[in-house]
Amino acid sequence: MIMGFRLRIVAAASLLCAAAIPVLMTGCATARDSRAVARSSSARLDSWREGATRTAIESFVARTTDPSSPDFVPEAERIAVFDNDGALWAEQPMYVQLAFIVDRVKALRAAHPEWESTEPFASLLKGDAKAVAAQGQHALVALVAATHGGMTDEEFRATVRAWLATARHPTTGLRYDEMVYRPMVEVLAYLRARGYRTFIVSGGGVDFVRAFASEAYGIPGDQVIGSTAKYRYEVRDGVATVVKTGEIDFVDDGAGKPVGIASRIGMRPRIAFGNSDGDFEMLAWTTAGQGARLGVLIHHTDAAREWAYDRSSHIGKLSRGLDEAPARGWVVVDMARDWAEIFAKVQ
Amino acid sequence: MIMGFRLRIVAAASLLCAAAIPVLMTGCATARDSRAVARSSSARLDSWREGATRTAIESFVARTTDPSSPDFVPEAERIAVFDNDGALWAEQPMYVQLAFIVDRVKALRAAHPEWESTEPFASLLKGDAKAVAAQGQHALVALVAATHGGMTDEEFRATVRAWLATARHPTTGLRYDEMVYRPMVEVLAYLRARGYRTFIVSGGGVDFVRAFASEAYGIPGDQVIGSTAKYRYEVRDGVATVVKTGEIDFVDDGAGKPVGIASRIGMRPRIAFGNSDGDFEMLAWTTAGQGARLGVLIHHTDAAREWAYDRSSHIGKLSRGLDEAPARGWVVVDMARDWAEIFAKVQ
Repeated sequence: MIMGFRLRIVAAASLLCAAAIPVLMTGCATARDSRAVARSSSARLDSWREGATRTAIESFVARTTDPSSPDFVPEAERIAVFDNDGALWAEQPMYVQLAFIVDRVKALRAAHPEWESTEPFASLLKGDAKAVAAQGQHALVALVAATHGGMTDEEFRATVRAWLATARHPTTGLRYDEMVYRPMVEVLAYLRARGYRTFIVSGGGVDFVRAFASEAYGIPGDQVIGSTAKYRYEVRDGVATVVKTGEIDFVDDGAGKPVGIASRIGMRPRIAFGNSDGDFEMLAWTTAGQGARLGVLIHHTDAAREWAYDRSSHIGKLSRGLDEAPARGWVVVDMARDWAEIFAKVQ
Repeated sequence: MIMGFRLRIVAAASLLCAAAIPVLMTGCATARDSRAVARSSSARLDSWREGATRTAIESFVARTTDPSSPDFVPEAERIAVFDNDGALWAEQPMYVQLAFIVDRVKALRAAHPEWESTEPFASLLKGDAKAVAAQGQHALVALVAATHGGMTDEEFRATVRAWLATARHPTTGLRYDEMVYRPMVEVLAYLRARGYRTFIVSGGGVDFVRAFASEAYGIPGDQVIGSTAKYRYEVRDGVATVVKTGEIDFVDDGAGKPVGIASRIGMRPRIAFGNSDGDFEMLAWTTAGQGARLGVLIHHTDAAREWAYDRSSHIGKLSRGLDEAPARGWVVVDMARDWAEIFAKVQ
């Protein structure tokens, strides 16, 4: 989200309103459940209900890891990529990184009295999300620079981790990292146990995602691709330092996703999971490669346990993907039908 | 080298002249020797002579992997980074990627009759390296675009591999990938066997290095950071494609190296190996981190078995690094003294 917001700016108004979408939560265990799963080597897809979707995933992995199969893929080529927002954790009613930005502006308010009369900070501090959104992308850029810039990457990730430890989702009351999808944490572990390497390819800011990717998903920072700010090397008081500038360098969304993968991984993936039209090009490029390829879209169909949204949503809009998935052979996960559990925090 | 050439452009004249520096080669085995080492899990530093240098490396690794040591480093933080040209393989009398560019221009000559009268191609095809160099960086950019652009990353890497299979070093007559340093291939395997993950951080083009990094060093493409061209997502005849544009996007040299590491790995390394002042900032940032850190400079001191060069060399200039290594606690490898073998291709 430094920034997959190019096309998402119109969403900001509704994002910041934090509409109280009803969510039934039944959980009481801790996020440690998912962390144990993320590290398991005998991983299974236990939170996936039996059916065509689960079978399609298991069958693909079986075929591509069986040396006697015509679809066998050498271990060096077993690359699987995953969108984050809406594919590995919840993205409603606003991207988690945007909630972080809002809270950071509030936390830094006392140190920045000029924000009370400077846009877009003044509108944000008044809770006037529509006014923020009306200022367009440069407003968002200013918010990112103010909340993400000037720190080292290490300081920034520590700030995110401290925020995640205390912030709560507006309607579920859960920690955001308790709202990672248990079935997807299982998929990550399932693939890794079978020689696949798992990468996140997110429109979100790369250092934001890195702050929790290892704990939440078992994915190290160098296997997180995301939107990036420019960094600057500086010698501060004689000490070599790398500082985040907050200036947007690369937007890892839409056509940026295959570009980010080519640049960072240098190999076309075998498997891609996404949930929105921002993942379309990533799935299209992945599944256009020779040999066995798997494209999967998570369709948010569960208004009772999570949210139900697709073609008309400002966040995670999924329309072209639904239209073209059958012809392209992509698997569409029906959350309500296919997932026995949703979140990491389960009974 | 798309392009660490900002400061190296003056070198191009001497580079292209391929000065016949005497090199004594005694080898007759194949590059498979180094490939076996790269994959070994019981790796030892057998090509390193006993002495303070070898002991410094072994001692650092022992301390940082011993849970009872105050210098212990958790496995998730065991990141080691390596320059490529002059640190993992030879860089004299010209960067290997530049030799590739020269050969590609010659190979594409018939398809580009306009090059006979267009600079910088005309001068290069006449063998007038000084005239090429005199045209400055834009000439080099044009050469890179013509030889690296327009292909998919997959096509480009295949082109590099085909070239490496037949090209020979002008004075040793070896394949370039036989001129990887056996002691360094041992260091890579030694570190990996002890839980370190190894990354290349090269001024060279990332896809050029990826074409051989797995075979030569056992390093997968996503653990190669290098200078990058811009990529472009395209739908060609209905098929999703990612194309290299040849337009320079990021120069991974000097202060660009810590920036590249922060952006791609998202963690400050524990160990950095380099050989030139282009690696200075990478070593400075690495060793400025808290806890145990190791910086190593390879000093090319062996005119008999390889090359001897440092402060006045146009390629791989090493001056500030030599001056500041003692005060910064960096280990300086004396190739003539410390390495029992030099190249992967040994007796």
